[in-house]
Formats: sequence, structure tokens, C-alpha cells
Amino acid sequence: MEILEIETGGHSELRNVTEAVNGAVRKSGAKEGVCLVFIPHTTCAVTLNENWDPDVQKDIENFLNRAVPWENGYRHQEGNSAAHIKTLLTGSSVSVPIHGGRLFLGEWQGVYLAEYDGPRKRKMTVCCLPCS
Amino acid sequence: MEILEIETGGHSELRNVTEAVNGAVRKSGAKEGVCLVFIPHTTCAVTLNENWDPDVQKDIENFLNRAVPWENGYRHQEGNSAAHIKTLLTGSSVSVPIHGGRLFLGEWQGVYLAEYDGPRKRKMTVCCLPCS
Amino acid sequence: MEILEIETGGHSELRNVTEAVNGAVRKSGAKEGVCLVFIPHTTCAVTLNENWDPDVQKDIENFLNRAVPWENGYRHQEGNSAAHIKTLLTGSSVSVPIHGGRLFLGEWQGVYLAEYDGPRKRKMTVCCLPCS
Repeated sequence: MEILEIETGGHSELRNVTEAVNGAVRKSGAKEGVCLVFIPHTTCAVTLNENWDPDVQKDIENFLNRAVPWENGYRHQEGNSAAHIKTLLTGSSVSVPIHGGRLFLGEWQGVYLAEYDGPRKRKMTVCCLPCS
Repeated sequence: MEILEIETGGHSELRNVTEAVNGAVRKSGAKEGVCLVFIPHTTCAVTLNENWDPDVQKDIENFLNRAVPWENGYRHQEGNSAAHIKTLLTGSSVSVPIHGGRLFLGEWQGVYLAEYDGPRKRKMTVCCLPCS
Repeated sequence: MEILEIETGGHSELRNVTEAVNGAVRKSGAKEGVCLVFIPHTTCAVTLNENWDPDVQKDIENFLNRAVPWENGYRHQEGNSAAHIKTLLTGSSVSVPIHGGRLFLGEWQGVYLAEYDGPRKRKMTVCCLPCS
């Protein structure tokens, strides 16, 4: 198990962490298997999406900001319920096959930390499991 | 593999099941690895979210009830399509690292069964996998 | 690890792939464990939902088409941002327990490839992990 630290730069941000996760896979020594990337926070998430055109990430952010408004008559006094809701919709982990000692992603896929209440220092836990 | 039974209490409810899952991890004897919590139903789900202020769970429930109305001109005669849709949005499993024989969650994280068409008797399947 | 090929038939479609995945589990020889079904694309996803009434799949498709309109002032020039957003909401993998050499699904559960920008030839990566 490896714990990675990521410093996010905006209130809301999709940050490409693919190479950081590949580094943890390399360090684990796993050649074939499954990699779990787990977020131990409740106002940021992790997802897989297109790694080519940054407009895709912008469109996702804009969609989520409209679908889950920051102000919406929420009860939670801390004021960040929208970030908790986006985290539920996005998910707190991704599982990716490992092949040849690296994440076995599709050509256009990257791993993204989805910050919904930043900027903050965030952690990601990476576990590598052997595969038959 | 352990099968847990949970009796939900409302039509819609986020029920904290963290200690039930930790009990299954303990029983498995796994010290380091990954725990899969899997829901064998299609109208309830499982998620990770804040374990401190119950208003967060209320805000999540209220958001989902507005975003996915119970009555919405659905075709499915059984009348619970909203619960199927919320299940797709939330997810049918969570994967959590195991460390020291327990779920290695963040400080504010709990595991929640998300009941969307209760009250019912529900099952959760817990599998523990060793981690390198 | 097994790579399955699926040819989708519509622009948007929930396609039942349960038996294809069970075939990959059989081929792996795994009797007890966890099966990861992973999608190496960013405009289609994978989910678990009801395998009985096809109206459930129709209601899910209709809901997503309304919630995430195809035309919505997106920046991404390729024009398929809605498919990327639905992929984030649905998820790029499912993890399912294996028992007795088959997916240990609930009675009403099936595995569905969620095509959001088809028809296309799609791949699914299936990894089987042993379970304690």
C-alpha cells in the first residue's frame, strides 16, 4: 500500500494523477493484477476520463456545477454539501487492471482526482492486487 | 466471503454499516488488503460519505429525491424506476483498503447502505482480498 | 486477464453482457474471488441493474438523456461531452464476487455495458482475483 499526497489548485478541479499512480504501481513491483486507487476524503473523488482535450474536463466541471449548485438550501452548516453530493455521484475509488507493471488504461483514459472543495492537500491510497 | 443482513427502516435512507463491515473483515482474518462490499440488489446501493453530521446524509437524500423524482412518466410498471436510477448513480459496490485488520477509511468516512425503495431486508456480500 | 469485444447497436444502449463476463470467469478457472469488469473507453461505461423488465433500461436511458442533454453549450469540439459526463456518473468498472466459478449476482442483477456514443466496437477487460 502506498499513500500519495496531492495538492489541488482550485475550488473545483479535475487533476490528472495517472503518472503518480503508475509510480506507486512500479514501487509495488506488481506486474499483472488490479490497482485500487482509493480516496480517504468525503469532498473529493477519483474518476477515469479523457486525457486529451482539457475541454472535456471543463465540460464535466461545468455540468456538475449546474446540476449540483453550491447554494441550494442545504442543512449541513459547513456549507459544502454540494461537494459531498458530487463525491457520491463520482465515486471514491477506481479499480484498473495492471499489465506489464503499469496501469492497463485505454488509449484516451487518464486517472483524475476530482477536487470538489479545494484547494486542499489530499491523499490517495494505492493498493496493488495480483490477478490470475 | 461473508453475507450480512441489514433491515432498513425507511423508504429512502443512508444507513451507516461501517461496523458491520469491519466485523466481516475481522472474521475473514485479513490484515492487509482490499475489502469489496457488494450489494446484490438493484434498488439499493452502497457508498462512502461523511460519518459525522447527519445533515450531510439528509442533504444527499433530498438532492437525489429532487434530481430523480419518484413519479416521472416512467414505463416500468412496478413503479420504482427512480430507485433503479439512483442505484446506477450511486454504485453497487465500494472497495476499501484493509490495514491492520480493519477498513482503512479516512477520518470522516463511513460506509453507507443507500436504501432507495425500502423498508426491506437487504443483503451485503463482503469479500477480503490480500494486497501486496 | 481476458479482453472481450462487444459491438453495440445504438447511439445509446444498455447491453446485457452477463454471460460474456461469466464466460471469461470460467476461462480464468477462478472458483471463489472477485471479478473486475473494466471499460478502457471514456464514452461508454459498465453498470449492474435489473435483468428482467427491459423498461427499466429504457427508463434509465431516458432519464440520462434528459439529465445530460446531448447539446448543452459544451466546449469540446468533438461534440460528445454528454457521453463523457454519463460515463463519469455511471462508472468505468464493476467488481462482482465470484462463487462456484460464476458471478455471484443477486437474482435480478445483470451486468450491462452502457453505450453512450455508439454504435461502436467496444472492449471490456475482465480480471479475476482470488478471495479469502
